[in-house]
Amino acid sequence: MLRIDIISAVPQLLESPLQHSIVGNAQEKELVEIQVHDLRDYSEDNHNKVDDYPYGGGPGMVLTPQPIFSCIEELQSKREYDEIIFTAPGGEPFEQESANKLSIKKNLMFLCGHYKGVDQRVIDSFITKTYSIGDVVLSGGELPALTMVDAIVRLLPGALGDAASALTDSFQNEQLLEGPVYTRPAEFRGMEVPKVLRSGDHQKVKEWRFEQSLERTKQVRPDIYKKFRNEQ
Amino acid sequence: MLRIDIISAVPQLLESPLQHSIVGNAQEKELVEIQVHDLRDYSEDNHNKVDDYPYGGGPGMVLTPQPIFSCIEELQSKREYDEIIFTAPGGEPFEQESANKLSIKKNLMFLCGHYKGVDQRVIDSFITKTYSIGDVVLSGGELPALTMVDAIVRLLPGALGDAASALTDSFQNEQLLEGPVYTRPAEFRGMEVPKVLRSGDHQKVKEWRFEQSLERTKQVRPDIYKKFRNEQ
Repeated sequence: MLRIDIISAVPQLLESPLQHSIVGNAQEKELVEIQVHDLRDYSEDNHNKVDDYPYGGGPGMVLTPQPIFSCIEELQSKREYDEIIFTAPGGEPFEQESANKLSIKKNLMFLCGHYKGVDQRVIDSFITKTYSIGDVVLSGGELPALTMVDAIVRLLPGALGDAASALTDSFQNEQLLEGPVYTRPAEFRGMEVPKVLRSGDHQKVKEWRFEQSLERTKQVRPDIYKKFRNEQ
Repeated sequence: MLRIDIISAVPQLLESPLQHSIVGNAQEKELVEIQVHDLRDYSEDNHNKVDDYPYGGGPGMVLTPQPIFSCIEELQSKREYDEIIFTAPGGEPFEQESANKLSIKKNLMFLCGHYKGVDQRVIDSFITKTYSIGDVVLSGGELPALTMVDAIVRLLPGALGDAASALTDSFQNEQLLEGPVYTRPAEFRGMEVPKVLRSGDHQKVKEWRFEQSLERTKQVRPDIYKKFRNEQ
C-alpha cells in the first residue's frame, strides 16, 4: 500500500480535501495511507515557533531548519522514502507522467513550504524532487501538495469507481486532450446533444471522439498536437 | 470588495483551505467575500442528482446541465460577473499575470468540474475563461479553483501581513525566480548561512540576491532567463 506523509505548518488547511471524494474513499478502501504532520509538534522552541525572519532582511517569514529536520529524520528512521518532494514556482512542471511515476512508489513525503520559502539548508539536505503546478505564487505548498496527491491517488488500482476511467482521461490516451462530453437530457433549452453520440454506433462514436480530441488539441494546445502528429 | 462564488458538487472538499491561512484571514478582514454553492441544492431531480452517464458510452460521470444552469442564472440575477471560470486540462495556463488581472475584478465565479467533465452546453453557454494548472488529470476542479483563489486573494491589498511581500515574490519582480532564502540559526549542523546575508550591507545583499535569482532562473527555467535577457 502506498504511504504518503505530508509535512505542513498549516495542517488544518489539508483536512477537508483529504477527507472527501476520491482521495477520501481511497483511504477508506485502504489503497493509500496518508499522514499529516504538524511542524509545530517538532519545534524545540519554547513557543513552538516554526518560522523566522529572513537573513539579509526583506518581507515574509521563512521556515526554520530545526523542526523540519526533526520531522523528516523521525520519518526516515521508520521507513525509506522513494521521494521527498517540495513544491516551488520554478520547479519541474508536475505533469501526468510525474503522477504516473509516483503512483507506483511505496513511500512518498511532501514538504509544504511557506510562500516566502524554506531555509535552503532543508532543501539541500533532503529534497529529491521540486515540482511546480504553474508560474504563480501561492500562500504555501499545501494546495500544490494536495493537487499532486489527488493526481497520484486516483491512479491507484481501485481508486476510481470504474477501473477503465483513468485510462481514457486527457493525457493518458495518446496524449490528446479530451473533446466535449454530454449527458442527459438530449435536448436542453434548445441545445441538442450531437446525434452521433445518441446513435448507438460505437465505431462512429469512437471516430467522432477522436476527431473532436484532435480538433480541440489543435486549437488550444498546438504544442501537444504537433508532438502527437510527429509520433504517428 | 472582491466577491468570489464557487460552484461545486463536492462543496465539503472546499472547506478547510478557505478557512485558514491567508485566504481565511482575508475573509475575516473583509477584503474578500467567498460563497460556496452546493450543486445538489439546485437539482430539480427527485434524488438531487447532479451527474449522469455520458452520451456515447464510456466510463465516468458527467455533470448535468440543469443544476448548473439554475445555479449560475440565480447568481447572475443578483450581480454581474466579470469572469465565469472553469478549469480543465488543456485550458489556458494559470500564471501570475492571470492572478494579477483577476485580483482587480469585482465579481468572479468558479465552476468546479467533475474529473470526467461537464456537459458541453454549460461550457458553451456561460464559461468566459478556462484555466489549467498543469497537464495532469485531477478528481475535479476544486483544487485548481482553490489554487487560483489563493493566488488571487493574497494579492488583495492588506491580505499579506507585510504589504511589500507580494511584490518581491517570484514572477512579480522582474520575472525571475527567487534565489535561496535562509533564516536563523546562522549555523545549523555545520551548514552556514552565506556571510553576505549576515553582513548588514544592504547593497551587497541586493546584488547577491539578484545574482542568485539570475543563476537559479538560468539553471531551472532557461525559457524565463532568455526572456529576461531579451528585455534588458
